[in-house]
Amino acid sequence: MKVYPECAQCLLRRIMYETELGGADMMQQYAAMKLAIDALHRDFSPEICSAEIATGVHKGVYELLGKDPYADAKRKSNEISLRLLPKASKMVEESENPFKTAVLCSIIGNVLDFGIRNDFANADVLLEKFDSLCEEGLGHDDTDDMRELASGKVVYLTDNCGEIVFDRLLLEQLRKMGAKITLVVRGEPILTDATMEDVRELGMGNLADKVMSTEIFAVGIPFWDMPEELDRELRSADLIIAKGMANYETLSETDYGPIAYLLRTKCRPVASSMGLKKDINAAKLYR
Amino acid sequence: MKVYPECAQCLLRRIMYETELGGADMMQQYAAMKLAIDALHRDFSPEICSAEIATGVHKGVYELLGKDPYADAKRKSNEISLRLLPKASKMVEESENPFKTAVLCSIIGNVLDFGIRNDFANADVLLEKFDSLCEEGLGHDDTDDMRELASGKVVYLTDNCGEIVFDRLLLEQLRKMGAKITLVVRGEPILTDATMEDVRELGMGNLADKVMSTEIFAVGIPFWDMPEELDRELRSADLIIAKGMANYETLSETDYGPIAYLLRTKCRPVASSMGLKKDINAAKLYR
Repeated sequence: MKVYPECAQCLLRRIMYETELGGADMMQQYAAMKLAIDALHRDFSPEICSAEIATGVHKGVYELLGKDPYADAKRKSNEISLRLLPKASKMVEESENPFKTAVLCSIIGNVLDFGIRNDFANADVLLEKFDSLCEEGLGHDDTDDMRELASGKVVYLTDNCGEIVFDRLLLEQLRKMGAKITLVVRGEPILTDATMEDVRELGMGNLADKVMSTEIFAVGIPFWDMPEELDRELRSADLIIAKGMANYETLSETDYGPIAYLLRTKCRPVASSMGLKKDINAAKLYR
Repeated sequence: MKVYPECAQCLLRRIMYETELGGADMMQQYAAMKLAIDALHRDFSPEICSAEIATGVHKGVYELLGKDPYADAKRKSNEISLRLLPKASKMVEESENPFKTAVLCSIIGNVLDFGIRNDFANADVLLEKFDSLCEEGLGHDDTDDMRELASGKVVYLTDNCGEIVFDRLLLEQLRKMGAKITLVVRGEPILTDATMEDVRELGMGNLADKVMSTEIFAVGIPFWDMPEELDRELRSADLIIAKGMANYETLSETDYGPIAYLLRTKCRPVASSMGLKKDINAAKLYR
């Protein structure tokens, strides 16, 4: 997906948020904003991928802060999702269509996105949201078509912390269907995304045949500097399952496939690019 | 007021809004955003006034659009405020402290800011807001101190369309108190701000002894390129009444005074700079 005009403001808003989260003082915030503006000035054009420009914008700011500003938020996200996991797990078990229900739960994990809006400290609110989002169901549902491909080699690209806790349910379903799974996390901490550390701490390594990372600092899948091993995995997949918007933003610039995008359409550019309504739970397969 | 780190994102958000309002297509929006990013890249530093950088950001975009994107919004703002004027006028007439009530009404005019959020088409919503804002009253009230200075030469710096309709009530009170009034509007269309055209169309010229403008394209008062006549007026004033945030952002960089700022603290930087809470109606005098 190419960057949209409105992405520029959203990127700067995110930079402000992450400097606050990282405890930056005002002079550091000026410096961070200046770096972000410099990156926009260098890269902003209708031809660049939204996630590639986002990577450039965040890179300088992470170096300036000298730490992962989302570290605490990510930990809390996982904790709170773990409290919801038994409820979600029961839903899948009791469902007439457990695969579809597991897809829905994993997308709802994408909705919550605790790191972004500061409400992750209130488990009751999350429980409340979880129920209403389950009732919402899938606004776009290609799970029947996904199922046909899910017994082969599946490369599963994770997204946020918190969300990854719910991915367990879908990974379990995929295993039952005979899938051979490669689980992929981010190579370095970026935003609220899950890394190897999360897979280890959540004991999720045994849910996949192989666990690997995107290797480098990048929002989404770094197709502009593609790690060879990841390229091989994606080329040999019968089905790529890509969680969240950043994976869509990057993979839509490539010819890998077939890809099932499981995400909440949280912003207008991504919704528009995918031909979907904003603020729906979507499982959309591109063959 | 110096620019705050978070002003950068707000400026870009505003640019998106005004290109949409101006009916720009997507390629124009890319070009507008690029111009705005260029201006931020050129000017953003902890030393620059927030309104001066905003002027630079908007200037290129106005030239690109080749028209005033807020023209319709400004007209509608005035229309809807005129519908509320009789109610506000009656409030002032029936008040035990008509000066203070007129100040409050003129600040509430600043709150509504119809151009910004698209809700100006619904007069009922505005009527509703108007009542609750009146009940809120002044969160900071220096009207007693203002009154002492208000019988001399008053330079009255207007802000938005819509808002200017309510300024009539305060101008009437000032006249009753013996003030000799110079009314100042923007020299060229900028954002939703009132210009000479509004003064003429609203028949407000006779409420002041003199009506003049800031002469050039600028957010607030262009102290960085100050028109001589405006400088003389401000130097000779017994009281400057400055409506809205942009006038505060610029005049706080100068030594003119005494100045009474009448505004709604709509953003964190201005509230913080003035030592006030966000989202209050404030009449704050700086001697």
